[in-house]
Amino acid sequence: MEENKDNIQFQISDELIEKVEHLIDSKSDFETLELLTEFHHADIAEILEELNLDQATYVIKLLDSELTSEVLIELDDDDREKILKNLSAKEIAEEIEELDSDDAADIIGELPEERQERVISQIEDEEHKADIQELLAYDEDSAGGLMAKELVKVNENWTVIRCVREMREQAAEVTRVHSIYVVDDDDKLIGRLSLKDLLVAKTSSNIKEIYIPKVDYVNVNEDVEEVAKVMQKYNLEAIPVVDNEQTLLGRITIDDIVDVIKEEAEKDYQLAAGITQEVEADDSILDHIKARLPWLVLGLFGGLASVFILEDFETLMTDPNVKKLFFFTPLIAAMAGNVGVQSSAIIVQGLANDVVKGSLLNRLLKEIGLSLINGIALGILVIFFGMFLNYDINFSLTIAISMLCVIIVAALIGTFVPIILDKKGIDPAIATGPFITTSNDIFGIFLFFYLAKLILGF
Amino acid sequence: MEENKDNIQFQISDELIEKVEHLIDSKSDFETLELLTEFHHADIAEILEELNLDQATYVIKLLDSELTSEVLIELDDDDREKILKNLSAKEIAEEIEELDSDDAADIIGELPEERQERVISQIEDEEHKADIQELLAYDEDSAGGLMAKELVKVNENWTVIRCVREMREQAAEVTRVHSIYVVDDDDKLIGRLSLKDLLVAKTSSNIKEIYIPKVDYVNVNEDVEEVAKVMQKYNLEAIPVVDNEQTLLGRITIDDIVDVIKEEAEKDYQLAAGITQEVEADDSILDHIKARLPWLVLGLFGGLASVFILEDFETLMTDPNVKKLFFFTPLIAAMAGNVGVQSSAIIVQGLANDVVKGSLLNRLLKEIGLSLINGIALGILVIFFGMFLNYDINFSLTIAISMLCVIIVAALIGTFVPIILDKKGIDPAIATGPFITTSNDIFGIFLFFYLAKLILGF
Repeated sequence: MEENKDNIQFQISDELIEKVEHLIDSKSDFETLELLTEFHHADIAEILEELNLDQATYVIKLLDSELTSEVLIELDDDDREKILKNLSAKEIAEEIEELDSDDAADIIGELPEERQERVISQIEDEEHKADIQELLAYDEDSAGGLMAKELVKVNENWTVIRCVREMREQAAEVTRVHSIYVVDDDDKLIGRLSLKDLLVAKTSSNIKEIYIPKVDYVNVNEDVEEVAKVMQKYNLEAIPVVDNEQTLLGRITIDDIVDVIKEEAEKDYQLAAGITQEVEADDSILDHIKARLPWLVLGLFGGLASVFILEDFETLMTDPNVKKLFFFTPLIAAMAGNVGVQSSAIIVQGLANDVVKGSLLNRLLKEIGLSLINGIALGILVIFFGMFLNYDINFSLTIAISMLCVIIVAALIGTFVPIILDKKGIDPAIATGPFITTSNDIFGIFLFFYLAKLILGF
Repeated sequence: MEENKDNIQFQISDELIEKVEHLIDSKSDFETLELLTEFHHADIAEILEELNLDQATYVIKLLDSELTSEVLIELDDDDREKILKNLSAKEIAEEIEELDSDDAADIIGELPEERQERVISQIEDEEHKADIQELLAYDEDSAGGLMAKELVKVNENWTVIRCVREMREQAAEVTRVHSIYVVDDDDKLIGRLSLKDLLVAKTSSNIKEIYIPKVDYVNVNEDVEEVAKVMQKYNLEAIPVVDNEQTLLGRITIDDIVDVIKEEAEKDYQLAAGITQEVEADDSILDHIKARLPWLVLGLFGGLASVFILEDFETLMTDPNVKKLFFFTPLIAAMAGNVGVQSSAIIVQGLANDVVKGSLLNRLLKEIGLSLINGIALGILVIFFGMFLNYDINFSLTIAISMLCVIIVAALIGTFVPIILDKKGIDPAIATGPFITTSNDIFGIFLFFYLAKLILGF
């Protein structure tokens, strides 16, 4: 049990990397193999990411395809791309042979188109080849793009004995057996059977008598986010995928869905922070610029728009008391931005989790009520601040009231922009970041100065 | 198959709710039962959330405990709390009897303390009661707080035949069998056996001969986020939980982990948007105020701080050209905020996914390089804008240079605040929202005016 003790705490140490590098550089193949095969493939992938490209390629070529195919899947997209460039079509095909159809299709899908064909033509297992080609044809974001062809299915007309015999063969191909799918003679999905049921069933029974006709499934064209919602809601660990004629095509397992859920949540978070594309701390500066600069330019244009607005109120600068309004622009911009982001984040999460119920009017009234309370509380603080600084009470009141209006409007914009985007089929998460802060900055500052000017009678 | 066709598209319609309400109000018990038992428990939970409390309680009392216990788990925390208030300790205990130990402990854990004891005392199954009491003792955020006691375990000294016989009994208690855990005579985890292995093994074999000694597991005190990372990394669908002596205590399944991952990602997103606590669109106004107002007050204080700073530069207002600087405060605040949020979001996600590698110095240089490029690009745009408005070139240059410095400093603050928080054991996600925008607003505006004053020689 010794080796297991460290499993959960697997941490790459500099010593380990140095040791691996040394073994590789001294071409100690046997020792390298001995050292690395001790590790889980996910750990080997972490080690490879610390090596240089030549060393990583060397390891991939050295280790057995059965192991390296799993390692390749665990690698970062960028690292995998680089390593695959160093392998021949034949070598890639050998890795692909070892993988489940979904992982195989994912890796081939990342290759340049002409390379895809060359790799596919080198795959020897004809059935595997056909499965991969079928999967490559589906949209990445559809159930078809996520499913694997490997599954265990039995015919309703079989007996339990025949079923077990056939399953032994099928099971050898399937990494994890979740459910046994029951089909009719036309290969149409009609029910399921759990391994547990089979375990407790009499061997003489007929599948027809013991299968469960109630089975959840998804259409091959269903959006993956929809699939994720269904699997979460009904607590499914695997779901069969069918075409429009109910023919069983494949299955999606929960571990693929975990990635979908995580990516979706991270994408929303990144959009909220003003970052497009999936970009990680360790990506290149160029990737970071592509992901970040467009949002900054948007923010800059928003800022320049508010320069125009403020220039319009330049005359207010002549009055020694009223010119203080200009000191409040960052405060107003911050409040408008913060309130807008809060409201939109709530709505975006609500839309993602399908909890935005009730009429638009109710939501409108709720947001107005909420902003009124928040705005009045903040307004009172501003008035105290003004008293502390001996501001004219009318001036403090003006700021408090204008700010209250800005807060209400910002909340409404923050609430309704995502709802409208969602209705138009645009990802509402785009509204939670710089987009909403920038527009709220402009709008808030204009409203603030306009109202202040009105109230103060300038 | 008709009923299945609609499974994935289950949508509550107003007609359905009206029908259910009508049946309940007219006390048509039989028809209500007949209608509702057609649905999946997750769908019934959705229906209950649309009813009023009396109606929902009525349904819970009407339906069979086996079904309603599952419905209760699917309900929103708030709705469940209200319904449980309407049930007696005995009624709750009856629901609890039907649940797996982890769900049972979760529900009991939500009750007020004295009620917990009364409910527990009413549970008839002594083993179930002991399991629940054990689970209640663990920290909510530890592996112990997430695990279920139900699992299938076999002794290494059994034969396959005895194993299958014993498993049939155990399996009846376990919702889903993922792995069969193998223990020694002291109940210590020594390996695992997949159902698949059992399916293909000869019935005469001994467990000792066929089990796999390599098994991943977690300690009962491990943090749930750590457990989630391990299960994701190693693609596990279930993981056994052991104590310090390696005694097998329970198991955690991937569906519980999905919730952990989702909640964690949503929490980060909410913090980034300036919302504490878990709050949903449909929660009460009071909950929303508690979650949102503190951040707005923080933003207000930040805004008031910048009022002080701007007052300090009041003299700049006397010069007709230089006073234009005040028109740029929203722009500078926006840039400082946006850059800071971008940098911190990247770091926070990197920390969460363990991809922040390399030395602090490298990260520092990378962020400075990135901000330099972004800042110069944005500065050029500002100079074009100035030319367009016939600004003095020196004034435009001043703004561009000051803004460049603000951007670099904002990126550094955004990068290092989360890293420092993380090292101090504070959730770094707190740094991605109003906290970073507010401090960057203040800092950015001060720096901008200070540098501009310096360059323009005031």
